[in-house]
Order: sequence, then C-alpha cells, then structure tokens
Amino acid sequence: MHTTVVNYRYKRSASRLTVGAHLFGILAIILMLVWLLHYRGGIDYESDNSDRVFNVHPFLMFFGFIFFAGEAMMAYKTVMSEHQGKKYMHALLHLIALCTGIFGICAAFRYHDMRQIDDMYTLHSWIGLGTFILYGLQWLVGAAAFLIPGGTPESRLRLIPWHMSMGRTILYLSICAALTGLMQKFTFLGLSKALGDRESHLINFTALAILLFGIFVDLSVALARYV
Amino acid sequence: MHTTVVNYRYKRSASRLTVGAHLFGILAIILMLVWLLHYRGGIDYESDNSDRVFNVHPFLMFFGFIFFAGEAMMAYKTVMSEHQGKKYMHALLHLIALCTGIFGICAAFRYHDMRQIDDMYTLHSWIGLGTFILYGLQWLVGAAAFLIPGGTPESRLRLIPWHMSMGRTILYLSICAALTGLMQKFTFLGLSKALGDRESHLINFTALAILLFGIFVDLSVALARYV
Repeated sequence: MHTTVVNYRYKRSASRLTVGAHLFGILAIILMLVWLLHYRGGIDYESDNSDRVFNVHPFLMFFGFIFFAGEAMMAYKTVMSEHQGKKYMHALLHLIALCTGIFGICAAFRYHDMRQIDDMYTLHSWIGLGTFILYGLQWLVGAAAFLIPGGTPESRLRLIPWHMSMGRTILYLSICAALTGLMQKFTFLGLSKALGDRESHLINFTALAILLFGIFVDLSVALARYV
Repeated sequence: MHTTVVNYRYKRSASRLTVGAHLFGILAIILMLVWLLHYRGGIDYESDNSDRVFNVHPFLMFFGFIFFAGEAMMAYKTVMSEHQGKKYMHALLHLIALCTGIFGICAAFRYHDMRQIDDMYTLHSWIGLGTFILYGLQWLVGAAAFLIPGGTPESRLRLIPWHMSMGRTILYLSICAALTGLMQKFTFLGLSKALGDRESHLINFTALAILLFGIFVDLSVALARYV
C-alpha cells in the first residue's frame, strides 16, 4: 500500500516533467525558427546563399536530432501501448533523429565548403561530432541487442544499465554541443557586427530553452525508473 | 549466483570509471593551471591586476566547485567505511565545493567591479549562477533531510530518487557552465588579439578534460547503483 502511494507520486512527477519537456522543446523550436527565419534569412539546403544553407544546421540539430532523441527517450515510458509498441516507437523516433542529424551535420560541412572554411577546428565541432558518433554507436548496439531476435534475456538485461546511462550521458553531451554551437555563432555574428541586442537575447533564450528541455527530459526519464 | 556475477561486473565497471574520473579531473586541473599561470599571469584574489583576480574564478569554479562536487558524488560509493562515514564524507566534500564555489563567484564579480563591466548579462552568467543556486538548495535540502536527525525513514526514502537525479542534473549543468565560461573567455581573448594558437588549443583541451570528468563521474555513479 505504502509503496503504491510513493510510486504514484513519482509517476505523477515524471509525467509532469514530461509535459514540461514537451513545452520547453516546442518553445526552443519556436524561438529558433523566429531567429533563423526573421533575423537570419531563412532555411534552405539547396540555396546559393551560404547563410541559408548554414541555417539548416542549427534547425536540424535541434528539431531533428535533440528534440526527436529526447521524445524517443520519453516515449519508452509515456507511449500508451504494449512493451513491444513502446520499444518500436523508441527505436523509430531515434532512427528519425539519427537520419535528420546526419543531414544537419552535412549542412555544416556544405556551408564550410561554400565559404572555404576549415572543418573540425572548434570545440563545438569536436563535442558535436564526438556526441553524434557515440549516438550512432548507441543506436547500433541498442538495435542489435534489443530489436534483432537472437540475444539471450540475460545479455539484454546486462546491457540495460549501460544503455540507459549512456543514453542520458549522450543527451547531456548533445545539449553541451548545442550550447557551444549557439555561443560560437553568437561570437561570429558579433565579430561581423551582424548582431543586435534583440537577436543576442533571442539566441541566449533559445539556448536556455534547449538546456531546460534537456533537464526536463533527463529528470522525467530518471524519475520514471522509480515507478 | 548469476545476479552476483552481473553485480560484480557493474562494480568493476563503476570502479574503472571512477579511476577515469579522477584522472580526467586531475588532467583538467593541470591544463587549467598551465593556462592560468603560464599564459594568463597567475592567480591572486588580492592583486591590483584585474586579470589575476579574474583567474581565481575559473580555477576555483573547476578545482573548488566542480572537482570537489564530483568527488563528493563518487565518495558516497567509493569511500571504504560504514554508511555513516560515507555520508559525512559526501556532505563534507560538498560543503567544501559550496564554500570554494562562493569564493570563485565573488572573484568574477570583483573583476567586473575593477573593470567596471556589467554583471549577469551573458548566457554563461545565467547558467552558472542558476546552477549554483540549485546546488546550494540541493545541499540545504540534503542536509536537512539526511544529516539532521528527525526525519522519518519514509520521508528520506522518498527524497532519495530526487536527490540522486537532481545531483546528476546539477553536475551536467555545472559542466555546461564551465564550457560556456571557457568559450566566452576564449572569445574575449580572441577579440583583444591576446590569444595565440597554442593557448587556444590549451583552452579547448581543458574544456574537453572537464567534459570527460563530468561524463566519467556521472557514469560511475549511475552504474554503481546497479551493484
């Protein structure tokens, strides 16, 4: 009886945190779209304007990669379905995040090519690509262990703590990548005198919304484990 | 029997991760000291040279705050002692982190006063102070619930998942604060043409070592829970 009451409390807390995560995620997408569409000239991978090609990168890395990956983490607990349904939804959302993430990284390299800028010399690029490689490995190991039939229940059980711990670590790594990326763009825009006061606040609040999305996803997943 | 084997594996992994955390923590301290002492003129809170006053800030925020807080998190699992001994060591290390952190934040404000720079207008300052306030609250709630006699075992048990989840969240927040802080200093030094290639690599590698310290502390604490 007592355990049920405590579990109910965590369940309620976890589902409130999930609502918070959705809200901060949507807020971050809106703020970022206002920034990219109103201040930065729009988003277009095929454009001849290199700035519009670049803008695909922050948009897809948050809305494509981080947002879908966060939703995938929460889906494992919140989707109203049988265990198999939750699992496939979790894997599918992560697959979408993986594919849009690859596309988003390509946009950054395409921008560098158009502007003839060196690749991979900034802290953001190291954290970002490192995170994405870990994410790809995590997806592959997860799919091999939990989706493809063949593994023993013991081997799956043994992998779960690693899968969950690494998942939350990669979530925070991706948040670090987003923050360092936004700060870097902030600096470059400031150097070229292309940054006003309003826009600088918009970038900073986008960064805060992304950070809060990460925290709420993490806490909702962490507390859901105590249910 | 089988459970024991699995638990032993996690115990071994967790203790290896703890060793990794110590190593990356010490590496980050060394890199930061080389940076501050060799390239940035030294560390002195009482100096008339504002740059030397500023240098107290990154040094104490990592070595004082983040490093001690990380060690405190790991101490709860690794200190060879009775439960009470672990608990007091955990609380004491966090108290040291809290006090040196306050001192480190004061250094940043003192630097702003000396240079007549505005306070609290950057993303780093918002994340940093927000993190530190959460950390102070976490310490107070933790001390009130787990150190001071009086609470019921049920109320303590109910708080543990929150205490652990918030602890890991605050750890990653502090890593985000460190990365944004180092990037900001990197930018300011670059703007004043005071940054060479070697120093910029040194700052970036310090940031990576801090990030790896955070990841290893987090994973060692997360996996130790499965022991």
